[in-house]
Amino acid sequence: MKRFFPILDWGRDYSRETLGNDLVAAMVVTIMLIPQGMAYAMLAGLPPQAGLYGAMLPLLIYALFGTSRTLAVGPVAVVALMTAAAAGQVAAVGDAEFHLAALALAALSGGMLLVLGLLRLGFLANFLSHPVISGFITAAGLLIAGSQLRHLLGAPVEGKTLVDLIPSLMAHLKDIHLLTLLLSVLVLGFLFWSRKGLAPVLRRVGLSARAAGLAAKAALFAAVAASTLAVWLMGLDAQGVRTVGDIPRGLPGLSVPAFDLDLLTLLLVPAAMIAVVGYVESVSIAQTLAAKRRQSIDPDRELVALGAANLGAAMSNAMPVTGGLSRSIVNFDAGARTPAAGAFTAAGIALALVFLTPLFFYLPRATLAAIIIVAVASLLDFRALPRTWAYSRADGAAMAATIGVTLIIGVEQGLLAGVVLSLLLHLWRTSRPHVAIVGQVPGTEHFRNVRRHEVVTAPDVVAIRIDESLYFPNARFLEDCVNDEVAARPGLSHVVLMFTAVNEVDASALESLEAINARLKEAGVALHLSEVKGPVMDRLRRSHFLDQLGGEVFLTQFDAMMRLSPVLTRAALAEPRRETMRDSPVPATPPHRVPG
Amino acid sequence: MKRFFPILDWGRDYSRETLGNDLVAAMVVTIMLIPQGMAYAMLAGLPPQAGLYGAMLPLLIYALFGTSRTLAVGPVAVVALMTAAAAGQVAAVGDAEFHLAALALAALSGGMLLVLGLLRLGFLANFLSHPVISGFITAAGLLIAGSQLRHLLGAPVEGKTLVDLIPSLMAHLKDIHLLTLLLSVLVLGFLFWSRKGLAPVLRRVGLSARAAGLAAKAALFAAVAASTLAVWLMGLDAQGVRTVGDIPRGLPGLSVPAFDLDLLTLLLVPAAMIAVVGYVESVSIAQTLAAKRRQSIDPDRELVALGAANLGAAMSNAMPVTGGLSRSIVNFDAGARTPAAGAFTAAGIALALVFLTPLFFYLPRATLAAIIIVAVASLLDFRALPRTWAYSRADGAAMAATIGVTLIIGVEQGLLAGVVLSLLLHLWRTSRPHVAIVGQVPGTEHFRNVRRHEVVTAPDVVAIRIDESLYFPNARFLEDCVNDEVAARPGLSHVVLMFTAVNEVDASALESLEAINARLKEAGVALHLSEVKGPVMDRLRRSHFLDQLGGEVFLTQFDAMMRLSPVLTRAALAEPRRETMRDSPVPATPPHRVPG
Repeated sequence: MKRFFPILDWGRDYSRETLGNDLVAAMVVTIMLIPQGMAYAMLAGLPPQAGLYGAMLPLLIYALFGTSRTLAVGPVAVVALMTAAAAGQVAAVGDAEFHLAALALAALSGGMLLVLGLLRLGFLANFLSHPVISGFITAAGLLIAGSQLRHLLGAPVEGKTLVDLIPSLMAHLKDIHLLTLLLSVLVLGFLFWSRKGLAPVLRRVGLSARAAGLAAKAALFAAVAASTLAVWLMGLDAQGVRTVGDIPRGLPGLSVPAFDLDLLTLLLVPAAMIAVVGYVESVSIAQTLAAKRRQSIDPDRELVALGAANLGAAMSNAMPVTGGLSRSIVNFDAGARTPAAGAFTAAGIALALVFLTPLFFYLPRATLAAIIIVAVASLLDFRALPRTWAYSRADGAAMAATIGVTLIIGVEQGLLAGVVLSLLLHLWRTSRPHVAIVGQVPGTEHFRNVRRHEVVTAPDVVAIRIDESLYFPNARFLEDCVNDEVAARPGLSHVVLMFTAVNEVDASALESLEAINARLKEAGVALHLSEVKGPVMDRLRRSHFLDQLGGEVFLTQFDAMMRLSPVLTRAALAEPRRETMRDSPVPATPPHRVPG
Repeated sequence: MKRFFPILDWGRDYSRETLGNDLVAAMVVTIMLIPQGMAYAMLAGLPPQAGLYGAMLPLLIYALFGTSRTLAVGPVAVVALMTAAAAGQVAAVGDAEFHLAALALAALSGGMLLVLGLLRLGFLANFLSHPVISGFITAAGLLIAGSQLRHLLGAPVEGKTLVDLIPSLMAHLKDIHLLTLLLSVLVLGFLFWSRKGLAPVLRRVGLSARAAGLAAKAALFAAVAASTLAVWLMGLDAQGVRTVGDIPRGLPGLSVPAFDLDLLTLLLVPAAMIAVVGYVESVSIAQTLAAKRRQSIDPDRELVALGAANLGAAMSNAMPVTGGLSRSIVNFDAGARTPAAGAFTAAGIALALVFLTPLFFYLPRATLAAIIIVAVASLLDFRALPRTWAYSRADGAAMAATIGVTLIIGVEQGLLAGVVLSLLLHLWRTSRPHVAIVGQVPGTEHFRNVRRHEVVTAPDVVAIRIDESLYFPNARFLEDCVNDEVAARPGLSHVVLMFTAVNEVDASALESLEAINARLKEAGVALHLSEVKGPVMDRLRRSHFLDQLGGEVFLTQFDAMMRLSPVLTRAALAEPRRETMRDSPVPATPPHRVPG
């Protein structure tokens, strides 16, 4: 039972102190979440209440099933953008079908997460590599910022990709509404300043460091209140500043939406992507926060919790949700101890829905857009691409492809391009493995690459270390490689394949090994194996390869050389130990050194 | 120049003896090829001359560019079946568009092979694993045999898959033409018997072993001659035995067919599959035969040669071609020394086209069908599936999927299913790598799995060997794995990751290593690496990981333990050596043994 309802675990020890901590955190998060929820609903192309609804039932459900103590679930920017892109493919913003499509996305992605969690298939999310997800989030952040230009400028700048956005911006420069732009600049300026500048000011006026830090999180609330008051008092709406307008008062009704099958089929792929991106983001945040307090989370239970939360979102007329980075950090910093903080946040949102919605009538859309911009600014990481490229060309290429395709073609295509390219590059690399001829490091029983270390080799034995599992993409490579090494060494009597890095020998590679063995036998050369791992040996024993093997299987490479070239090997062991690793491999053919 | 025209190499030393050998081989192959060419054209749904044309210009072109001395190029059964399946998707058998589609397939696959060869991308063919290709050929062989039932039975049994064939056979049992069936049984019986039984008989009547062996290859010719004569003399065609009929006399004209773009687009995927299957079959045969005579072939030049041969096929009104197994073996056994044998074969086919076509008017289609059945019978390998399954579940599953999908859905889908499944299974496996805790094998500097070997471990050091490259699908696994091992060992001071099997650390895994290192540092545990390979070390040096590393990087695991636990390690080295590998791993938790 505890495995399914972590609440039974943390609920038992719930103390008054924990309650106090959770309540403070919930209050801070609620104040952030009210404007953010409306802003992300706007980003997703939905009415503002959809974002507030998404901050109620899903939070209660996550508090029941979630294994993270501090994850703040709700609408988030990247998922809102993906929702807008997917729903935009089946309906126009503002239509009833558009909101239905968003609910279908929540239901589908929730269902998928739930099923994956129950089947314990959380590892599938690992196929989204760090560079791909990081590139995707940066590119999505740029698109999100671009999508808010229309609210910031008060001009109809539109476009789902950079290719559409830039010309639209150019065309509408003349339509910019100056009063809206002024408001945007003021709110943006205040919000960016408040991230670093507000807390010191509050401390100077006498607040404690902790209180000042928390109060600074309420900057969003201050921006909302000030800009709403300004619009109301100065009648800016009559001068063309667009506002949020009417929000229905009260709590969302619960219902199972009537999706038709065609709609669900159309949204299957985007829903899968929303599920994966939401899950990966959420779990990374949850793991990072849990590690800070030496707690742990269960990735498979998180799938179940996020899946149920999204099903709740679909049933309460909301939008797809997941764990959000900024609110989770605020929740953590504000001292949340248990998922009860999430439930209290939901209660706060409910109070706002019942009592506060009329106050948002004059809230300018430009303020919500500014809140989005500030939130996504922290997601952008432009230095990641050069850093990743410098470390690994393959990872850099996958990241660049993700960013480029997301910005130019679209969010789904960008994510797919990144995943497919990173898998293809991996397959390509393993199909051409690194191979080293190895020799004995003098003074040790250790064998290393002749091109990097000053080592001792025997003239009639070649020891080849293949740095990859042997499987079909490199099976033929293996044959060619052994053939070449043997052809280059007349007078050879023994070939030792050193299997330290061979974690698998599949049926294709087994056939290649059999062919190599047969060919070497005909040529009067014995094939030996060394350092074969247990699981590989188990596998080989199930075939006839070991019976046909011309040579032997040695536990260690040292054992092999002690048998095949005992005099040289013993002499090399007796030599003094020297550290001789070269910084880069010798380009020339392997040197043979026979110790005196 | 020699690289592009191997003929300049073997042509220089061409002797009278070589000429004699090549001529004999060409004669035997021509006699086989005339009926086989017509039969495979019939299998592909094309007029009989298309098969004969495919045995002329392509052979001359291959003789110019090919690097195999003995590969016999021409129409082959599996490619003919794939041609029929693909062309059948755009036109009906017998239409002019059907033959145009077959020519388009030859042109497209030829062009692809040529481009791949010029770009030296031959390794792409390696992604077709042995089990997938072997399963595909067995399944294709069954479909081929099924497709010939209509000719063998003289009844309109139709179907491109087993699902269609079996009901069609049931429905048409009553339509079987008994005279045709009788002829089929006689020809099939003779051909199957002749494979083993004819040579001994010929030897008994006085032929030398070699001559008898060669003459036995002419059994096809005997079957063709006898059944043709029987139809002509007994007027069987008037009684309903269907014959080949008119074949246009003379050589094919050369022309560039006018393909429209829609047709080429439709056939792109099937052409790619024909290219890959044809290439893989051909290169395997060529490599096997070359190895028998200690010659070698160049896979990238083979791509160019087969590509050019197929372009020649498209221009001479023929059909897609590749290297065939049975004819290549006959060519090799009959003593072919150079590709000139192929050119002589082409000349023989030309003579037949000019002088012999009227003789084939009464050749029964049942005889050609019997020739196809005998040819594909040698392709079927039903024991491969249980053998592969016993060796490796993953390979067995890929093979079973290939066979099943090919038989039930179709040839292209079957091949795709096999390739995709084998790649997915590989990715799945590497995402959950084998991990071993290692200890010192007493009396050596060697470290092995504690669950398989009786080894010595230190209480405050855990050495973890991860048997896989570290990359994004297993990056999170690595974190979990190290966390678990550390959590299970209170009082731990050092973690050593043994990198013998780590051939790559990608950007995702680097982030995981950084996270592991930071977490261990906080817990007061030092993270060390040992046996890091040169290429991995080069990569790590480009990041900041080595600067932040809590511990050290050791050349060998023995060095690490000599530093971290010198007393135990020296004592274990001094112990007598024992061979202690267990047949299967100990299931329980790792035993700690401290030597006295």
